[in-house]
Amino acid sequence: MIHALAPGATVIDVTHAVDPYDVLQAAAVLADAVPYLPVGVHVAVVDPGVGTQRRAVALTCEDGRAYVGPDNGVLMLAASRSGIHSGVELRSPSEGAAGVTFAGRDVFAPAAARLAIGAAPLALGEPIAVDSLVPLSVPPAMTEAGGLRVLVLSVDRFGTLQLACSRQEFAALGSSAQLLVTTSEARIRARRARTFSDVAVGSLLVYEDSFGRMSVAVREGSAAEQLAAAAGDWISLGAE
Amino acid sequence: MIHALAPGATVIDVTHAVDPYDVLQAAAVLADAVPYLPVGVHVAVVDPGVGTQRRAVALTCEDGRAYVGPDNGVLMLAASRSGIHSGVELRSPSEGAAGVTFAGRDVFAPAAARLAIGAAPLALGEPIAVDSLVPLSVPPAMTEAGGLRVLVLSVDRFGTLQLACSRQEFAALGSSAQLLVTTSEARIRARRARTFSDVAVGSLLVYEDSFGRMSVAVREGSAAEQLAAAAGDWISLGAE
Amino acid sequence: MIHALAPGATVIDVTHAVDPYDVLQAAAVLADAVPYLPVGVHVAVVDPGVGTQRRAVALTCEDGRAYVGPDNGVLMLAASRSGIHSGVELRSPSEGAAGVTFAGRDVFAPAAARLAIGAAPLALGEPIAVDSLVPLSVPPAMTEAGGLRVLVLSVDRFGTLQLACSRQEFAALGSSAQLLVTTSEARIRARRARTFSDVAVGSLLVYEDSFGRMSVAVREGSAAEQLAAAAGDWISLGAE
Repeated sequence: MIHALAPGATVIDVTHAVDPYDVLQAAAVLADAVPYLPVGVHVAVVDPGVGTQRRAVALTCEDGRAYVGPDNGVLMLAASRSGIHSGVELRSPSEGAAGVTFAGRDVFAPAAARLAIGAAPLALGEPIAVDSLVPLSVPPAMTEAGGLRVLVLSVDRFGTLQLACSRQEFAALGSSAQLLVTTSEARIRARRARTFSDVAVGSLLVYEDSFGRMSVAVREGSAAEQLAAAAGDWISLGAE
Repeated sequence: MIHALAPGATVIDVTHAVDPYDVLQAAAVLADAVPYLPVGVHVAVVDPGVGTQRRAVALTCEDGRAYVGPDNGVLMLAASRSGIHSGVELRSPSEGAAGVTFAGRDVFAPAAARLAIGAAPLALGEPIAVDSLVPLSVPPAMTEAGGLRVLVLSVDRFGTLQLACSRQEFAALGSSAQLLVTTSEARIRARRARTFSDVAVGSLLVYEDSFGRMSVAVREGSAAEQLAAAAGDWISLGAE
Repeated sequence: MIHALAPGATVIDVTHAVDPYDVLQAAAVLADAVPYLPVGVHVAVVDPGVGTQRRAVALTCEDGRAYVGPDNGVLMLAASRSGIHSGVELRSPSEGAAGVTFAGRDVFAPAAARLAIGAAPLALGEPIAVDSLVPLSVPPAMTEAGGLRVLVLSVDRFGTLQLACSRQEFAALGSSAQLLVTTSEARIRARRARTFSDVAVGSLLVYEDSFGRMSVAVREGSAAEQLAAAAGDWISLGAE
């Protein structure tokens, strides 16, 4: 749709690998990717509420970026860092012969294409109040007896768990080099490390990933398998 | 190959997720996608007969589109809507050192690239009669006692079943809001709905998708899992 | 990153489907793809040693191509065919707030982008001796009683096994049309064939693929499943 409506535009396909319906994961992926993307129009669609009254929005930001997607929070981690300046609610296309479930094609991509070729946001819909946008935030790590309880934000194809846990939150565990990672199915020793090669092949490490999030990996193996963990799980980190 | 032979061309990669060897599924995906793609040269390769005498063809259409692929039906749902004007059988490349099993690289992509930069179809091969092309059609829904028997065309990564069943065929079930979906392994109530949010999380719905095909989904879940259904299966829809 | 640093560059995404940590498989994929790619800057990152002292390099070749990646062999099958002319060790980015584990984004893509827009390799780092590069070669087929022992280089999504075995090595089996393929879990008859349609649906064939490597496939089925074989396995081929 974008190529059809904005033939000169460069389309960068960041990912189609977000877990279905996981708005938080998508929001984190978008926020992590944007600092490395050219300034442009960013479209993100994870949209369990497609076809409902949830709004479709386009947001214009102070850093020159625009965001297009459902008003369910998926844009908010990235857009709030970009400084949301104003927003519009996208007009729905007149319903055609077919169904209403592919808003990415029928609503979001066309709006993004029009913005990319210079349309004014107000040509796409009515202005909305920025403070009416559905907010989203990453659940903070929670202290518990003996450690931290943290959300698994995502699991990549290597089986590495990206945690909703910053370096600052992680500091609550102190400086022990040995950690214990506990899920509902496993309890495994891990080493606090800077990179994979700091541990033996097959061993668990906890490290700060390249997006500034604490992560759990297995060197040349899969932490998701060893720990039987998936995106959306809460796991425990303890000092040993 | 296309970038190498037609450096200025915009290459749009629609999908690599068609099930292996499923010519009908690929034909439906192509036909569904084309109305939203810029006019251009469309290449589709699902090719169980690679290396046999099946022909490789390029088709020129009345709407300005061209289609390139094997003459096994994969192009035909889309191309016949585009109005096939003429066709050529692509010449085989002279066999080189390596095998003959990658026609996408060695036959179809080079032909598409040459068309994209303005080559005349007749420069690519000998003309063929349009009515000699291998036809393909979507199997119609069949009425049976208590309902319809329909083919599952494809299953997407959300587990939604796209059915070979149009709104018109579906009308044979009458207007009951409650339906029964039956596969060889399951028999589950579903609601006739307009969109996912019309049913509870985890419940089955039957709705018209954004390509005008009836579909079976589970809100924030997988219909393929609940029904143990896959592309190529025939399933039954009944009114309750 | 490349779009951000080299806005005019055409980025061709060859694959993200190499098995994790499999340097040899990636090296073979790269070497097989390069002859069909435009002359340009080729980036390959399979990098089990990220964060260690393994070097990051850019290689300039006699055929006009450049290669960027870790100095672990992943570039070497392709680059040595291109004729390595000179190399530099890429300077590490100054460490920022976040981790050191995403060299693709932080080291290799930026270097490739700079080369693509005309930077001199010496602007990216210090020269290194070409003969100091970590070498890589495909393990040759080994003769054994009754046949050949060969490495499975990769398995594609159809379940076809690509073997580290050339036509010349394969000739050691003689000209018998019937072969026997043996893995740790299975022992199955296969036919020496030119293409899939030379055998019945569901049957095994051994053929030369379109990259000049011997391969084991099942017509409209999966050799990986029938043989319980995966990339990195050694399997036996015998004449019957």
